[in-house]
Order: sequence, then C-alpha cells, then structure tokens
Amino acid sequence: MASGRFYLSCLVLGSLGSMCILFTVYWMQYWRGGFAWNGSIYMFNWHPVLMVAGMVVFYGGASLVYRLPQSWVGPKLPWKLLHAALHLMAFVLTVVGLVAVFTFHNHGRITNLYTLHSWLGITTVFLFACQWFLGFAVFLLPWASLWLRSLLKPIHVFFGAAILSLSIASVISGINEKLFFISLKNGTRPYSSLPSEAVFANSTGMLVVAFGLLVLYILLASSWKRPEPGILTDRQPLLHDGE
Amino acid sequence: MASGRFYLSCLVLGSLGSMCILFTVYWMQYWRGGFAWNGSIYMFNWHPVLMVAGMVVFYGGASLVYRLPQSWVGPKLPWKLLHAALHLMAFVLTVVGLVAVFTFHNHGRITNLYTLHSWLGITTVFLFACQWFLGFAVFLLPWASLWLRSLLKPIHVFFGAAILSLSIASVISGINEKLFFISLKNGTRPYSSLPSEAVFANSTGMLVVAFGLLVLYILLASSWKRPEPGILTDRQPLLHDGE
Repeated sequence: MASGRFYLSCLVLGSLGSMCILFTVYWMQYWRGGFAWNGSIYMFNWHPVLMVAGMVVFYGGASLVYRLPQSWVGPKLPWKLLHAALHLMAFVLTVVGLVAVFTFHNHGRITNLYTLHSWLGITTVFLFACQWFLGFAVFLLPWASLWLRSLLKPIHVFFGAAILSLSIASVISGINEKLFFISLKNGTRPYSSLPSEAVFANSTGMLVVAFGLLVLYILLASSWKRPEPGILTDRQPLLHDGE
Repeated sequence: MASGRFYLSCLVLGSLGSMCILFTVYWMQYWRGGFAWNGSIYMFNWHPVLMVAGMVVFYGGASLVYRLPQSWVGPKLPWKLLHAALHLMAFVLTVVGLVAVFTFHNHGRITNLYTLHSWLGITTVFLFACQWFLGFAVFLLPWASLWLRSLLKPIHVFFGAAILSLSIASVISGINEKLFFISLKNGTRPYSSLPSEAVFANSTGMLVVAFGLLVLYILLASSWKRPEPGILTDRQPLLHDGE
C-alpha cells in the first residue's frame, strides 16, 4: 500500500519533471527561435533549459535515491554511488547552462551577474558544488570518521533540500526576468497584456514549483525513508554505522 | 550548551529579520520617495515592506514558537495560541501589503496578476490562508479527533516550511522585477550598471534568503524540537495526545 503510493508519487514526479523540461524547451523553440552554440541569443536559450533540467529535475530526482524501497536493504554503497553520479550529471548540466549564459553575455558585451536572479543563482550553484564535494569526501570516500559523518549528515540533508528551494527561487526570478526582457523588444506584445507566451512561461514556472514541492515532500515529510536504526535519530544513541 | 546555541541562533535570527525589514524600508524611503496611502507609487512602496515583514520575518518567527525551550514543558495550549496569534499578525501584514499593490494598480489602471511573481505570490498567500484556517480548525479548536490531528500534523509542518520557501521565491522575483521597472525610467541608471540602489536591493534579497534558510534550519534540521514522546514519530506507536 505504502509502496504503491510511493510508485504513484514517482509517476507524478516523473511526469511533472518531464513537463518542466519539455515546456522550457517548447518555450525556447516555439517563441524564442530555438537553439545554437554560437554566442547568440539562441545560445542563451540553452540556459533556462539546462538550469531547469540540471538544478531542478535531475537534482530533485538524484536527491530521492534513498527513498527507493530497493535501497533500504543490502549494502548502501551502490546507492551512494548512484546518488553521487546522478548529482554529478545534474551539476554538469548546470555548468553547461552557465557557460551558455556567460558566453552569450560576453559575446554581446552584456554585463554579467548584476541581477538578483544571477546573485542568487550563482550562490546556489556554488552551494551545490560545495555540497557535492563535501558529500563525496565525507560520505563516499572511506576515510571520514563515523563521528564526522554523523555530525555532517543532518547538515548534508538540510542543504540538499535548501539548495533545491534556492534553485526554485532562481528559476522563478529567471523566468520572470526573461519575460520582462522579451516585453522590452519592439513589436512584442507587453507582458502585462499576457500574450500566450507569457501564460505558457508563467505556467512553466508554476510547474517547476509543483515539482519542487513534491520532491521536498517525499524527501522531508514522507515515511519513505531508509530505515537506519540508531544513527542520527534525535535522542537515540549511536549504535551502528548507518553511512 | 544546546540552549546557549539556540539563543545565539535566535539572536542572529532576530538581527537578520530586523535587517530584512529595515533594509526594505530604507530602500523604499531613500531611493523610492517614501510612503503614502493614496493609490500612488508611494502606496506601492508599502508592498515590499509589508510582504517581507509579514510573509518572511513574522511568519518565520511565528513558525519557531515550539522550538523555544519554555514551550517544551507544561500545557501546549498557550503556545498554540501564541503560534496562531503571531501567524495571524503575519497574515494581516500580508493582506495589507496586497491591498497596497492592488490599490496602486487599480488607481493607475495597471493590470493585476500578470507576472510570474504575482502568480506565485498570490498562490503562496492562498496556501498561507488555507494553512492558517486548517491549523485553527484542527489543532486549536477542540473538536478534531486525535486520528485527524496525527494525520494532518506532518502535512501542516511540511506546508509551514514550504510556504516560507515559496515566500522567499516570491520576494526574490519581486525585488528583481522592481529593479527592472526602476531601470526603465528616464534618467535612471540602468540595472546592468549596478547603481548603489541595485546593490542595496540585491543585498536585501540575499539577506531575506539568509533569514529564510536559518528559520528552515532551526525548524527542520536542529534538535531543538518539542519532545513529544510517542506521537507522530516515524515507526513509533501512538501513545499520547501530543497535540
């Protein structure tokens, strides 16, 4: 029953995540002229797609590895490797998404990093990088002590969820900002008249929010957590190496 | 020791929260001409101040009532009343903040609710209203069954944190959007040249993020939770009325 609800949630999550990416691709393809890798505005179009795919959808999916019932039994190492590998894929997509926007700016002599969107976005990516390397060094490599692991695990779990929340805030401010930029162009209907592109892009933003909330719910509030007797549960003694 | 760290966190939280409000007031007063209640742009200036104060600072503070060590012993009802009353204050500030922006728009014949910022913001306020009324009906009024309370409590806790995350996303997109609007005015230095106003407002946004993350950390990841033996802890039987 609980397992059935879990897989139903995964189905909803997979559908929402795919829709987030497909909607962003469709927005860029249908209204913004598609994609290229040449420093033009069509290179910029990779930015929203790769950030939504990397920092939200892949990141969200990678976070949930330990919620799979299969991960609850047997050795934890293969699941740790999967968790780290999926996050690394998310990080690579993110970095390529950043290369797209920086190259477009530099090519068109547009200032980098002046909006609040960019300040928050770059902070979020920096936190993600720290989180990945610290997680790799402490939880995947075999040298960290149990004491250090049990100290850092709640912080790792918290920042995992916090970085996703900041990614959502970055995506929302990014979509909002892009629609203002579009609105400034000659011959374009203003954002305030809600042309079909704006309705579509606003809806894409709300889909990203729905996806993020579902990931956070499964991550934080559900009972689908890997049982780890004794370790790191409040007010329980340290009995096992849960890592 | 743990209690000392808690009060230190409260001190940091209080300072950050005050700075969030004061920075927003200073931005509106020093660069945007101050406040009025007459349908003009000076009436709009109440909007960022009241949303940051209501949906972030008061909301965040109100969420943390059960983390106060004083709330851990004795009857829970007075703390529930405080939790509900502080959230009601946060909600009133929020509603007045919405009245400020809607009145300004209606007065100047500006379209309401077309930006993604406004879509997300109004959704967040709607969720907050549902959360407050459901919390009041189920956890404060004496009629709900233990079964219903234990079913809804993790959902109430999750949405408490989720609404704060969405508030942060709304504030970030709102500050970003406001700086674009300002940038469009004649005689104003563009946002991309990072005038002092933009640096100050961006910093205010980052302060809001820092405040929100600290609230979420104390709420979700710290060990400063009201001990409630037996109730609603995963994989433990229902022994007491922890509500």
